[in-house]
Amino acid sequence: MDSNGVDEHQMKLVEGAAGYVLEDVPHLSDYIHDLPTYPNPLQSNAAYSVVRQYFVDEDDTVMEKIVVHQDSPRGTHFRRAGPRQKVYFKPADVRACIVTCGGLCPGLNTVIREIVCGLHFMYGVTEVIGVDCGFRGFYSKNTVTLTPKVVSDIHKRGGTILGTSRGGHDTSKIVDNIQDREINQVYIIGGDGTQKGASAIYKEIRRRGLKVAVAGIPKTIDNDIPVIDKSFGFDTAVEEAQRAINAAHVEATSVENGIGLVKLMGRYSGFIAMYATLASRDVDCCLIPESPFYLEGKGGLYEFIAKRLRENGHMVIVIAEGAGQDLVAESIEKQDASGNKLLKDVGLWMSLKIKEHFAKQGKMEITLKYIDPTYMIRAIPANASDNVYSTLLAQSAVHGAMAGYTGFISGLVNGRHTYIPLNRITERQNKVVITDRMWARMLSSTNQPSFMNPPKETTEATN
Amino acid sequence: MDSNGVDEHQMKLVEGAAGYVLEDVPHLSDYIHDLPTYPNPLQSNAAYSVVRQYFVDEDDTVMEKIVVHQDSPRGTHFRRAGPRQKVYFKPADVRACIVTCGGLCPGLNTVIREIVCGLHFMYGVTEVIGVDCGFRGFYSKNTVTLTPKVVSDIHKRGGTILGTSRGGHDTSKIVDNIQDREINQVYIIGGDGTQKGASAIYKEIRRRGLKVAVAGIPKTIDNDIPVIDKSFGFDTAVEEAQRAINAAHVEATSVENGIGLVKLMGRYSGFIAMYATLASRDVDCCLIPESPFYLEGKGGLYEFIAKRLRENGHMVIVIAEGAGQDLVAESIEKQDASGNKLLKDVGLWMSLKIKEHFAKQGKMEITLKYIDPTYMIRAIPANASDNVYSTLLAQSAVHGAMAGYTGFISGLVNGRHTYIPLNRITERQNKVVITDRMWARMLSSTNQPSFMNPPKETTEATN
Amino acid sequence: MDSNGVDEHQMKLVEGAAGYVLEDVPHLSDYIHDLPTYPNPLQSNAAYSVVRQYFVDEDDTVMEKIVVHQDSPRGTHFRRAGPRQKVYFKPADVRACIVTCGGLCPGLNTVIREIVCGLHFMYGVTEVIGVDCGFRGFYSKNTVTLTPKVVSDIHKRGGTILGTSRGGHDTSKIVDNIQDREINQVYIIGGDGTQKGASAIYKEIRRRGLKVAVAGIPKTIDNDIPVIDKSFGFDTAVEEAQRAINAAHVEATSVENGIGLVKLMGRYSGFIAMYATLASRDVDCCLIPESPFYLEGKGGLYEFIAKRLRENGHMVIVIAEGAGQDLVAESIEKQDASGNKLLKDVGLWMSLKIKEHFAKQGKMEITLKYIDPTYMIRAIPANASDNVYSTLLAQSAVHGAMAGYTGFISGLVNGRHTYIPLNRITERQNKVVITDRMWARMLSSTNQPSFMNPPKETTEATN
Amino acid sequence: MDSNGVDEHQMKLVEGAAGYVLEDVPHLSDYIHDLPTYPNPLQSNAAYSVVRQYFVDEDDTVMEKIVVHQDSPRGTHFRRAGPRQKVYFKPADVRACIVTCGGLCPGLNTVIREIVCGLHFMYGVTEVIGVDCGFRGFYSKNTVTLTPKVVSDIHKRGGTILGTSRGGHDTSKIVDNIQDREINQVYIIGGDGTQKGASAIYKEIRRRGLKVAVAGIPKTIDNDIPVIDKSFGFDTAVEEAQRAINAAHVEATSVENGIGLVKLMGRYSGFIAMYATLASRDVDCCLIPESPFYLEGKGGLYEFIAKRLRENGHMVIVIAEGAGQDLVAESIEKQDASGNKLLKDVGLWMSLKIKEHFAKQGKMEITLKYIDPTYMIRAIPANASDNVYSTLLAQSAVHGAMAGYTGFISGLVNGRHTYIPLNRITERQNKVVITDRMWARMLSSTNQPSFMNPPKETTEATN
Repeated sequence: MDSNGVDEHQMKLVEGAAGYVLEDVPHLSDYIHDLPTYPNPLQSNAAYSVVRQYFVDEDDTVMEKIVVHQDSPRGTHFRRAGPRQKVYFKPADVRACIVTCGGLCPGLNTVIREIVCGLHFMYGVTEVIGVDCGFRGFYSKNTVTLTPKVVSDIHKRGGTILGTSRGGHDTSKIVDNIQDREINQVYIIGGDGTQKGASAIYKEIRRRGLKVAVAGIPKTIDNDIPVIDKSFGFDTAVEEAQRAINAAHVEATSVENGIGLVKLMGRYSGFIAMYATLASRDVDCCLIPESPFYLEGKGGLYEFIAKRLRENGHMVIVIAEGAGQDLVAESIEKQDASGNKLLKDVGLWMSLKIKEHFAKQGKMEITLKYIDPTYMIRAIPANASDNVYSTLLAQSAVHGAMAGYTGFISGLVNGRHTYIPLNRITERQNKVVITDRMWARMLSSTNQPSFMNPPKETTEATN
Repeated sequence: MDSNGVDEHQMKLVEGAAGYVLEDVPHLSDYIHDLPTYPNPLQSNAAYSVVRQYFVDEDDTVMEKIVVHQDSPRGTHFRRAGPRQKVYFKPADVRACIVTCGGLCPGLNTVIREIVCGLHFMYGVTEVIGVDCGFRGFYSKNTVTLTPKVVSDIHKRGGTILGTSRGGHDTSKIVDNIQDREINQVYIIGGDGTQKGASAIYKEIRRRGLKVAVAGIPKTIDNDIPVIDKSFGFDTAVEEAQRAINAAHVEATSVENGIGLVKLMGRYSGFIAMYATLASRDVDCCLIPESPFYLEGKGGLYEFIAKRLRENGHMVIVIAEGAGQDLVAESIEKQDASGNKLLKDVGLWMSLKIKEHFAKQGKMEITLKYIDPTYMIRAIPANASDNVYSTLLAQSAVHGAMAGYTGFISGLVNGRHTYIPLNRITERQNKVVITDRMWARMLSSTNQPSFMNPPKETTEATN
Repeated sequence: MDSNGVDEHQMKLVEGAAGYVLEDVPHLSDYIHDLPTYPNPLQSNAAYSVVRQYFVDEDDTVMEKIVVHQDSPRGTHFRRAGPRQKVYFKPADVRACIVTCGGLCPGLNTVIREIVCGLHFMYGVTEVIGVDCGFRGFYSKNTVTLTPKVVSDIHKRGGTILGTSRGGHDTSKIVDNIQDREINQVYIIGGDGTQKGASAIYKEIRRRGLKVAVAGIPKTIDNDIPVIDKSFGFDTAVEEAQRAINAAHVEATSVENGIGLVKLMGRYSGFIAMYATLASRDVDCCLIPESPFYLEGKGGLYEFIAKRLRENGHMVIVIAEGAGQDLVAESIEKQDASGNKLLKDVGLWMSLKIKEHFAKQGKMEITLKYIDPTYMIRAIPANASDNVYSTLLAQSAVHGAMAGYTGFISGLVNGRHTYIPLNRITERQNKVVITDRMWARMLSSTNQPSFMNPPKETTEATN
Repeated sequence: MDSNGVDEHQMKLVEGAAGYVLEDVPHLSDYIHDLPTYPNPLQSNAAYSVVRQYFVDEDDTVMEKIVVHQDSPRGTHFRRAGPRQKVYFKPADVRACIVTCGGLCPGLNTVIREIVCGLHFMYGVTEVIGVDCGFRGFYSKNTVTLTPKVVSDIHKRGGTILGTSRGGHDTSKIVDNIQDREINQVYIIGGDGTQKGASAIYKEIRRRGLKVAVAGIPKTIDNDIPVIDKSFGFDTAVEEAQRAINAAHVEATSVENGIGLVKLMGRYSGFIAMYATLASRDVDCCLIPESPFYLEGKGGLYEFIAKRLRENGHMVIVIAEGAGQDLVAESIEKQDASGNKLLKDVGLWMSLKIKEHFAKQGKMEITLKYIDPTYMIRAIPANASDNVYSTLLAQSAVHGAMAGYTGFISGLVNGRHTYIPLNRITERQNKVVITDRMWARMLSSTNQPSFMNPPKETTEATN
């Protein structure tokens, strides 16, 4: 329970008839009393006045589970994103800041651009600052002033103009700094680790009773954030991954017993690997973290490789970076040398293992080419679809913060923009592939075995 | 009422509690009695057996209106797409055909490929034929045999390997031909005109009591098909349109008072123009069919152009092909000459009009460059996102036809694959832009006037 | 003869044994006496000191005609480009300006960038100004200051950051302005019209006895500048043209009797059309200004189209913008209406003519798709090869001007960078395709007829 | 001396006045007497008859050294490539074969396509076979029949449809096989090792007195083949390398003290690294095999990295695969473990070394991202410029073989197509970068130190 009588760890749930539940987001008025409101400046904006019902009805909520039976309970809903008739900040008083954390992802610059332009052109907010190089930038670095002119062309560039870093999160120092700089809107773009940080910042702000809205825009190229449909940059990543798969296919088909091995992003989830495989149709085997596999013996990967090479003369394997970590770990701990650092990379490890296996076996001369396009994928600008998507995520976040919501992320649920409580993102497990029927579609498209039942003897051997 | 006691023009509605309505699709068993069923061959497919609950529950339906209030009625639902436990065709008996109609659209070849591969690899169906060059190919042309090998690489190519044409629809002759060839699954890929044809074919087949499933896959690069989230190829089109807008921007900014004018697809709806504008951020004015505009006088387009050029020295205009048709029609009927055929193209017409206006006015020397990328956009292969999307649409259609559904289209509703009655698509008005809040977002991004209130005198002048 | 006893209209020829001729470029010392020289600052540049013989030997010349017989005369040579041991400008005294004229061409920004960076980093010159929007910018517009920082990223953008225009050349006013601004190096980037202007500026400067070096960098996307191997941007243009040809091919092959018609740049010469055709292999007919053709009758274009359609069912035609101008002119003068302005575009004209012919004839229903990618080609950034090439042209120009040469262009001759007298470029006819054996190669690749011998009756009809 | 009185190891030199030397290529008539000749079928080819002087004059030769002084000796010349008035093979008798060896290179498929189409369409030769997977394919594999239809679209695909391999050269078995199959024209596409093989095959064929023409088309993505201007695929490779450099630049600039490290092809020569660096302008340091460097101490690489990071906050390093091999070798021999295999890759090795150095030093926290785009570059299709170039190389080879020349390669010298004796390519050292003034230009563009003078103590340390 905070000083205002609300437990900041508690979800804000509103229940209704027929099993209806709204998982609502916190609002500044939850812990600050008698906040004044102002009419939304968009009311007098020519662009918006031509559209009927532009403002979001306060009662609009978006259903989470939409595959239903005739008598299903209505289930969880989220607050619909968008502009409200009244706002809780006077534009002239707003002082916003933006920070980007974690790895690169196509669309970061678009999100930055559209927060700046959204605040500026929709709400007349002119004070926006950029925090340099991630969370630590709040206290160890200078900030930069962000104006529409500064960000005008950045959506055509990859990376983040603000710089990024991992870690560096010190809640107290960050909130001190927010107070010192008189910032009252904080936009935090980053993955689940970052959003945990955002949640901590929100709670501390609430504990101190500050009128500061905290909005998260979830970012993960791996697409493993729960609840939301997909994360920005994912489409672009899958698109760009096609280049690597095409190259692997050409290399594999231009020699006898050619193997093209492509490592793609995905530490805990194989979405990029799976979608890239589905989009390409040139892949014979896709390995992801969610689906364990084994190398030796009947039904193992080596056997499958040998089979495909005998049948087709070539094959393409896509492996997510987090796949087979158990095998890698076990393989490496047996030896200790500086080159082994490289073997922690599952792609390099597997390319060595496959080569060694076939060399040792001596029956089949293979040629394996390994491609790791990770940084070439992460660093490109967003494609058109991700540009539009990132724009809408950013605009939703701005509408939300202006409307006084806080401790929320801007996220797409069933194609609708919503506000989701930060807790909901950070306290659930990440999204994974395996239970999805998409995985069945993919297995069907590659015709690979499930690698599900290692033979006993093999299991021992590889343990 | 047909001979089986069901009115084939009637929607098949199932109602439930709390306002629940299922707009169901027809099924072969609606008019053929005692059809035998068979276990779905996927039950013994290794790829599918690893996934829990792979088969769709017969009761699964997808909600249409998902932005709800606490007490909203449940509203319309559609049947969820996907494989069923039992099928109504013995794979060895299936003889399927595929036809593509209307203009080109990225993804056509992927849809063809995946119907062929889906039938083949998922259901063991080996007889699939391609109808050559649209509806008329049923009776005036030879067919081609489609195998997984034939279609193996076609998703990397633009266009349609089957060929296409407009019109040529003669229901009787087509159904005669379907009977002659002993075809029992018909896959029809095309726009709303084509789906009207598909609906007529379905009704005639039903009238004749044939055991033939008719499945439509809606195709329109304009994205104006009602009910569904978006049509395949749309993302690719918006992406490719960026090239033209970029070029227009470079041309416009490299001279004094430069205007870049880009015509994009969209006869009745401006989705491509609007999304391409939103994705680009270099566009100063976007004109679409849904939003009328006028040229002369206060608040007109000429005034806005002059204003932007004075402010920025350059501007980019995007116009959908169907925008301003009233102005074009009126302008052309005044004269009659062979060159005027070209003026029916709103892009060429407008480039002449703008040049003439500023030449006549004599105050401002402009340089206008007109770009029409239409065929360069239509003809490219699908991007990764559309490849995956087209794949799933095709697989859903195959699952649906195998399960005995007919007179349906395979469509995405709120991100879920569903079967939608053909009537629902063909009897409603096309989707348009204007009431959407996306249009407000776009107006806000270009800062263009609404062109809503032509001054009286000007109206007369342009009449 | 100018006041210094040298005829400024005269070529500067040096003759040697065995028919050796050097067509030398003018030098400031030709008309200004007792010019001081300075050691080249590159002598103390670490980067250059590691390379043996970095400085060009003053006697180095490049042979023009290198396909020789055992006893051929040695023929024409040009002065080799590159840094000299001594320079005629003290870096601190240099005040350079750059102007771009005429149409856009990939690589313009790279040339600008590298003149600025070459002067700055190689010679320590810090005063470089950009003239705004072509020749008229000398007297009607403000200039911009160009520094390495300003131009740092411009090579990744299409167009020209300086702006460009056609015409606007007033020699006196320009040279007055050069004097007023105390400019002593003038870099002029443009086509043959522009280089004629450069030549006039050089002559007037010489007449006035000014110590001002005038260097031209020839620019024409059409590649029709005489003497030099190819103009910058040409490779990029041919590359980008492939997109349009691919699209035309897809459109043509996706319908019955499909024709894809692509207009490419080339007002007086068909190099882009020819190379794009050779690179693509999907083109059935390539029409260029150098090779007249006729439409009707035996051996005419219509007949060839009908033949190809009967054989293959589809065809792709590439036409250079300057092809068939005689036919267009004759066709248009017969009628007079505002839409006819559009018919001056040979692509639009021809698409109408072909459609009308086949409609009138009524034997064959064709579908023609016309693509004009001109501005999408012109406006893209230079590819890697043109970036390197543009860089070297710019650096050569800088070395030449610093070494006191003037009235020259920087050009590639047989793969070697040279200085060529401006007269040589402006007083000869433009380069054309027809006598080249490349044309035979292309004819052979398309298998099109030569359209050389119109039947008498047809000749009369079309004359 | 062979049985015909000519030493097959001897160059065929023709000398003339003023130091003129023709390094001629062997001809079948050198060792086979009384060969009949036939008129070139091109004489009656409509396409060629429109071009004046289409056939190459027998006396045409191309000068090698074209930067000359007024009185330079005329020097070496090569025979000009192209069609001759008479040919030494009757088209109906020709049985040609094509083999591709070594690593992939953009353009391989274009060369294959154009040999097939050139023989077919220019000379009416219909028997062309493809040897499967390199030299060993002559005796261990089946061949494939190559027709214009088979090769029609292959130029749009990367790789080689024939397959390739390294080594496997057994001269006797190959020539036996050529005799067995009654092949009389052998087209060999490959690098310098392959051309040495071609030379051995030619000599053995000559020793046996067979009427078999051997033509080489030199292939090396590294561009290190002597005499010729550049090898096909090089432009495409440099272009594609930009992607990796751009990504490295984005990664480096998006973090504090970011380093982007890109490995490019070039085992013995740094042409790709150098041109890619020049084209990009985002590279701070380019390391190539020809220019040794050292890591530690004053003037070493570590010092330079630290300096750049302090100045700019980020840097991009491009390293050719053959650079620093001395350092790698020395570093690895000190340890022995399976992971060390990976360290033979200079890119992986250097990324570890740099990370270890800065971690050990502890003054500067760096983030290094390593990108190896090698296979993504090799495997793409040729760009337009390389497509045209590959076409002309192939056509020249065909003209040469038909004209009875043998033991030659088809190569570009000073922009002219020539026939160069195989000996000349295989007996000289490979082309390298360092003495070229292009290297100075590149050093100047990166402003990197020359790494030429390692401090004594450091030298000891790293030895």
